[in-house]
Parts: sequence; C-alpha cells; structure tokens
Amino acid sequence: MSNYDGEIGLRIREEEFAARRSQLAAELDGRGLAGGVLFDPFRILYYTGFAFVPTERPIAFVLATDGPSALLVPRLEVDHARAATAPGEVVSYEEYPGRQHPMDVLCEVLDGLGLRGRAGADMDGYPWIFGYRGPPVGGVTPIAGIIDDRMAVKSPAEIALLRESARWAIFAHELLQRYTRQGLGEREVAARASADATAALLEEIGPSYRAHDPWVDGALATYRGQIGRGAAIPHSLTGSSTFQAEDMLISGASVPMWGYRAELERTLVVGQPTAEQRRLFDHMLSLQDVALEAIRPGRRCMDVDLSVRDYYERHGLWDFWRHHSGHAVGLRYHEGPFLDVGDETMIMPGMVFAVEPGLYSTDVGGVRHSDTVVVTDEGIEILTAYPRDLESLTVPVVPDVL
Amino acid sequence: MSNYDGEIGLRIREEEFAARRSQLAAELDGRGLAGGVLFDPFRILYYTGFAFVPTERPIAFVLATDGPSALLVPRLEVDHARAATAPGEVVSYEEYPGRQHPMDVLCEVLDGLGLRGRAGADMDGYPWIFGYRGPPVGGVTPIAGIIDDRMAVKSPAEIALLRESARWAIFAHELLQRYTRQGLGEREVAARASADATAALLEEIGPSYRAHDPWVDGALATYRGQIGRGAAIPHSLTGSSTFQAEDMLISGASVPMWGYRAELERTLVVGQPTAEQRRLFDHMLSLQDVALEAIRPGRRCMDVDLSVRDYYERHGLWDFWRHHSGHAVGLRYHEGPFLDVGDETMIMPGMVFAVEPGLYSTDVGGVRHSDTVVVTDEGIEILTAYPRDLESLTVPVVPDVL
Repeated sequence: MSNYDGEIGLRIREEEFAARRSQLAAELDGRGLAGGVLFDPFRILYYTGFAFVPTERPIAFVLATDGPSALLVPRLEVDHARAATAPGEVVSYEEYPGRQHPMDVLCEVLDGLGLRGRAGADMDGYPWIFGYRGPPVGGVTPIAGIIDDRMAVKSPAEIALLRESARWAIFAHELLQRYTRQGLGEREVAARASADATAALLEEIGPSYRAHDPWVDGALATYRGQIGRGAAIPHSLTGSSTFQAEDMLISGASVPMWGYRAELERTLVVGQPTAEQRRLFDHMLSLQDVALEAIRPGRRCMDVDLSVRDYYERHGLWDFWRHHSGHAVGLRYHEGPFLDVGDETMIMPGMVFAVEPGLYSTDVGGVRHSDTVVVTDEGIEILTAYPRDLESLTVPVVPDVL
Repeated sequence: MSNYDGEIGLRIREEEFAARRSQLAAELDGRGLAGGVLFDPFRILYYTGFAFVPTERPIAFVLATDGPSALLVPRLEVDHARAATAPGEVVSYEEYPGRQHPMDVLCEVLDGLGLRGRAGADMDGYPWIFGYRGPPVGGVTPIAGIIDDRMAVKSPAEIALLRESARWAIFAHELLQRYTRQGLGEREVAARASADATAALLEEIGPSYRAHDPWVDGALATYRGQIGRGAAIPHSLTGSSTFQAEDMLISGASVPMWGYRAELERTLVVGQPTAEQRRLFDHMLSLQDVALEAIRPGRRCMDVDLSVRDYYERHGLWDFWRHHSGHAVGLRYHEGPFLDVGDETMIMPGMVFAVEPGLYSTDVGGVRHSDTVVVTDEGIEILTAYPRDLESLTVPVVPDVL
C-alpha cells in the first residue's frame, strides 16, 4: 500500500484542521476578541483545507471563538467549498461586482455571529487585486502576525508533506540535471523534466494527488533564466538561454503536495569550471555549512545570519553578497521567520527553512544551493538530500548522443 | 524579419512607459497630490517595465508629479532593476527584515522628493504577504482606482501583445486538443501540449522572449481538473482525471507575452455527446453570441450581463448559472471592468474582455467557451479565433494509433 492511501494517508486530516481552529479561537479569546476573519488564501487553506484560485471575488473565513464558523464564497465556489473539508456554514453571495457588495454580505455574517466590532482580521478587507474594489472591514484588530507565528511551526503531518515534496523535488531535479546538455535551451529542458516528473508522480500517487497550489499543478524543475551571467540576477525572470560551456547554472525544483512545497536549488557548471568559479563554489558550500551548523533550537534566526555574515567578512566576500541566509517554507514559497540579522525569532523544533546563502558576480554569475531542513529537538534534518559537490553537479560538454 | 525584432518589435517601448508616467503625474496633480507610490507588481510593471517575483521584500515605485521618480528595491534586485527599462533612480535597502526596515527607507525617499503626506498610494503599505510584516505608509490617498481605470484601456502596443498572446494560445490549444485521447490523463496531455507549444514559441521568437509573468514561463494549455462531472466546479484545482467517453472537458490556454495574457477556453466532448450535453452546449453558444453582440463602445458593462441574464431567464436556465459574463484581461489574468450587472463602466475602444458565460450541471459537468475580444470603434474584434462548434470540439473515442 502506498503512503498516499488509507488511514496513514499523506493528508492534513479533519481533526488537525479542527485543532488548528480551536487553537486560533483560544488565542483570539485570550486577546479579548470574539472571533476572526481571514482573507488570505493560504491562511484559509491552513484553517479549512479549502484551496482556491484567487480572483476578483472575495472569499473569507469567519471563526467565532465560541464555536461557529462560516466560509463566505461567491455562488461560483459553493459546490467546491462544500466538497472541500471546509467546516461550518458555507455562505454565498451571487457574484462580484454583482448587485450586493460581498462586504455587505460579510457584515451580515459578522452580525449574525455577534462579531461586528469584536473581531480580528488578517487584512482590513479583501485586497484590491484582480479588479476587486471594496472598503475596509473597519474596526478590526490585526491578527496576521499571530497566525503566521503559528503557521511557522509545522505539525508532523505538515512535515510529512514537506518531506514528500522534497523527495519529488529531488527526483525532478535528477531529471533536470540529466536532460541538461550544452546547446539545449533551458525552457525545453525544464519543460521535459517537469512533464516527466509529473507523469511519474501521477503514476505513483494516482488520481488522488492534489497540488493545492493556485499556480503550480505538478512537478516544476527549472532554471528561470539563471544561466551564465544571467545567474548574477537572482530573480531575473528571463529564461530563454541556451546552455554553453563554462556557464554556471542555478536550478530550482519544487513539487507542491497538498499545498506544501520544499525548496531544492543547485548550482551546476557546464564543462570544466574556471578557477574563479571553483573558488566561489567552494565558498558557497562553506557558507551553507556555516548556516546549517548554526540552525539549532533555542538559537535566534538572526544568529544564523550573523554566523554567515561573519564568514563573508572574514573572507572578503561582501561584493558577492545579495541576500539573507534563508527563509521558512510551508504553504507559501517564502514565509517567515527569516534567517536574517533583523529577525529575532527563536528557532523551534518543527520550523522548516530553506537555507541558501549565495554569491553573485557579474563575471561568473550566481552561485547558490538551497536545501530545505526541518528543525528537530537536537538540530536539523535535511529533507533535500541531493549531491552538493561540484563534480556531481558538472554537466558534460560532449553532447550525449544516446 | 519576424515581428519580434527591430523597430516594430512587439514590446512596450520606453516612450510609452514615459507617456504612462506623465499621464499618471497629470492625473495625480489634478487631484492635488504631489506624487504617488505603487506597491502592486502589475502596476509597477505597467509604469516601469520592471517585472519581478513578489517575495517578502517590498518593492515600490515612487513618482513625483514634477518629474523625478525612484524605484525602491532590495539589494538583491538592484542589478535586475537597472537592467530593466526602469526610469529614475534605483534606491535600495539591504534586506528584509534586515537592520533597517524598508518602510523607513521608503519614508526617506518620500521626504527626499517632498512627498510625505502629499502623495497617493495604490495600497497603504506593502501587503503582508510571504512573511513580510510592516506598517502602513499612513496619510496617503488611495489611487488604485484611477490607475486600474487607466490600465483598462489598452494601447495599440498592448493590443498587439494580447493579439500575439492569443495567436500562441490558439496554437497551444490546437496541440492540447490533438493530444487529448480517451484513456490518457489530463496532466500528461497538458504537460506535453504546453512543452511543445513553448518549444515552438522559442523557435520562432528566439531568446528575446519574455513571459514577464511571475508564475507562467511559456505556453500553458491545460484542463485544471475540469473534466466530466468535475467540470461543474469551475475552479476546482483537482487535475488528475483520465479522459473517458461522454466526458465534457473545459480547456484553457494562455501564453504570457511580456506580461500580457489573452484567455482562450473551450468545451470539448469525448465521443458522442448525450442529448442533454448537446442541449447545454447549444445554449452556451447562444449565450456567448448574446454577450459578443452586446459588447459595443458606448454601452455599459452591465448591459452585456443583463442581456445574457435575460437569455438564462427566457430559457429557464437559472439552475445552471454560476458567474458573470466575463472580465477584462491584460497584465492580470482577471481585471476590471467586469461584464457584470454590478459594473456601470462605459465600454470603450481599447478595452479587452474575456467573454465566457457558462452553464454548470452536476449531471453533465461544465459548459463554457472563453474568447478574448478587443473593443474597436465600431464593435469588437475576436482575438482568439478558434473553432466553437461541437463537431470541431469532439475528441474521438477510438485511440489514434498513428
């Protein structure tokens, strides 16, 4: 029997969603609030299991601390919301803009639950995105921070999903590396690796697989333009390069599993590396080692970044510095806390970080590995166990004619 | 010479970005504001040409009505911002969370330009997403509405990009339909069609192609779980179905061209349709005809939806109604105005709409075509010219063994 079936299925079970809601209710109650309103899709997914595509139509989850809850959706999403593991009542409005503004319907829901003026909200009204225009809820206490703090510590079921996401990311990355050849284009290689990894995933998991991600619908293994000198620009969004000898490449693989996405990135080199490429690569490995060593429960996130920055300082590498040492991952591809000098959060067991100090040079390009680690009682466990050394990450320059 | 090269290249040229900024400056000035601050990535792309991946690190564009402008980015994005067609000064902060909060740096920029307390903003501070936490800017006038009104009317260069996006969406959809076979899985078919269309696109355009989309990096042709009965749930996010005889399918194809994405969707049937499938399909075609007929400059958006609703009413189809008749498209996959009873916006030449009234039945599934049209001086031009009739959209049940 596969991991994906039956009682031990890789899912967040309804009992866990219920426990999350109880915990939130208690936290709100402790702050003198009678309830809370959530607008952010990731936070709604976290508390209800309802995954949806954000559009102009507001969706909100309302929780009263004394028990009742309601999910406000457009008519369009009623059947979908009922089919999800969503709790409580599903309340719908006809459409947006429609004849009645969805925020008026939300106010009726709040009134019905006795929450008007007594509730918190993660945002003051649905955000003005995709054409939505609307007023703030008004009179709400901000509660995004307490929710995100809670989401930062993952449960065993969440860690299991992130571990599974990492396992598939490793597989997708193996294909990406195997298909990468001098002279080929990055997009065709990425498309082939992503498609083949997705097919394998569906073969193993079967039709019960859910990405629960609004934008990525299976395995994704890609270079996103971080090729050769382009790799000096970490989020360059280019992506039409052809692999050439002496290019340094930064890859990325991720596979959403019921919304959870581990992060795996590697620096590869096409053919024989130059001395400078090797020098930066070796420093990058050492920097990542410093970060991995520094992540321990009871330390602060900033301590990790301070250790990493100390390495840059001691080796005269500041010119190559561009960003902090890492960030948490979970339902969001980036989330807090951050491995950053400005983040005093205490590291706790169950936190999951992408650890990725990098070096960027306009001559050489970018050099960065990213590994996803879960904090344990004693230290860390690396979920993305993929070769890190330059020899293993060298792309042959002679085309493979098999 | 291809459309993508040289002087007539399919791009938004720097002169157009400059004209957009001048127009915004004049509009802000007319409202007694000394400048504006933009946080939304799509709005920043519209005014600067700078496309980026949103993360925890705030990015903001500041425009003073008397001329100067500044793009606030993290150190990570400095080279990228400078390489884009971004105007004015690039101001950077080290990192987020970092040692100095990015909003403090933004305030310094506003002070430097004499804008503090005298500016508008599209949002009151960078949104709390991907782990970012920060204060509102405070004391700013909301200007998202006037910007989105402006973005709703597309320039000839924008329409050219949307036309090109539609052309590639048609091609990607042709592949999707050709590869769809009874017994195959929707994800493998979608992955193959998307990969092949992307390869063809890169072959024609070459390495200068830019998606300028944070999430879609080439052609996308997919079913997204809208298969058989699942198609009754429009945004179901499932996606692991296998095509079976008598399934009705709703497809979608879109190809971002420098950020612009036309929308093309079709209803297909596997094998011989049932009488009820054919009945709903025919009504859907008529509904779309009603909507297409009703879109004329000088009418209001609500009038289109009223005409469509009148058809539902006359034919007793309300049980199958789920959503309004359509929405504008551009840099965002949904944007305003909406073909909706609640939207009084006057239809103007240069507006671009996805027109997609649909019918949804728990027995039959969903039935919806979506076509992207541009409003002309006299009426409309359909950009997504793809067969609409059921015969053309029937998938053979006998596997093609060629």
